[in-house]
Amino acid sequence: MIEALKPGFTLDARLDADTEQLMWLGLCELRIMNDRRWPWLVMVPQRAGIEELHDLTPLDQAMLTFETNMVASALKRVTGCIKINSGALGNIVRQLHVHIIARNEGDPAWPGPVWGHGLREPYTSEEIHGFTAKIKAAL
Amino acid sequence: MIEALKPGFTLDARLDADTEQLMWLGLCELRIMNDRRWPWLVMVPQRAGIEELHDLTPLDQAMLTFETNMVASALKRVTGCIKINSGALGNIVRQLHVHIIARNEGDPAWPGPVWGHGLREPYTSEEIHGFTAKIKAAL
Repeated sequence: MIEALKPGFTLDARLDADTEQLMWLGLCELRIMNDRRWPWLVMVPQRAGIEELHDLTPLDQAMLTFETNMVASALKRVTGCIKINSGALGNIVRQLHVHIIARNEGDPAWPGPVWGHGLREPYTSEEIHGFTAKIKAAL
Repeated sequence: MIEALKPGFTLDARLDADTEQLMWLGLCELRIMNDRRWPWLVMVPQRAGIEELHDLTPLDQAMLTFETNMVASALKRVTGCIKINSGALGNIVRQLHVHIIARNEGDPAWPGPVWGHGLREPYTSEEIHGFTAKIKAAL
């Protein structure tokens, strides 16, 4: 019952539907976007009722910076991508979440942003398991 | 000659063309995107040769977190927007820069991202002066 340690926090239903759990970090749950078009991770700080980065406490902001750094470096190492895109938008899902995406020239949305581009293409369970294992090993 | 204090740093030519100088913070130059469709600020860490957030030193990352926090809060207060979008993409301009954008339901790209959406609509000089003054006052 990890949820019992995070008072009032419940994962947004749409985030829950679009992403799969990867691992717990100190502040965030690390999830993977179930979209095989891009290696795409999502970090969700386990804090109830927060919509903006600047609404986190200073300590939580420092933690998030540290964890984002770790996740982005690992994603770049694992994928060998040429650029990391990171962003906190929240226009549709208001619960604070940070996207970390591996981009390459010629990928489906290049050089535009991935958000809102076409339709999500789910991984096979074998693919998502393989990608997840690589990220876990790199962290 | 502020540039003399930032060894080797030169602002990317495209960033220079699309944005106007607003003020200097500790680590970043704060600039405004010359696009009246959205209140849109751009923070450029004055570090040469850096393309990814995770390539900044830990101290610079902490500074950037602090400055981003300050800028995002000020932009939200000044505009009364319902959501801040922040992101570091860099697919086109590789020099590290962080976007902080005020979003509202019904704005030109809502709820999608602003990057790559249609054509930039420059402010009149009166408009950009007015917006710039409000942000400076809020910081």
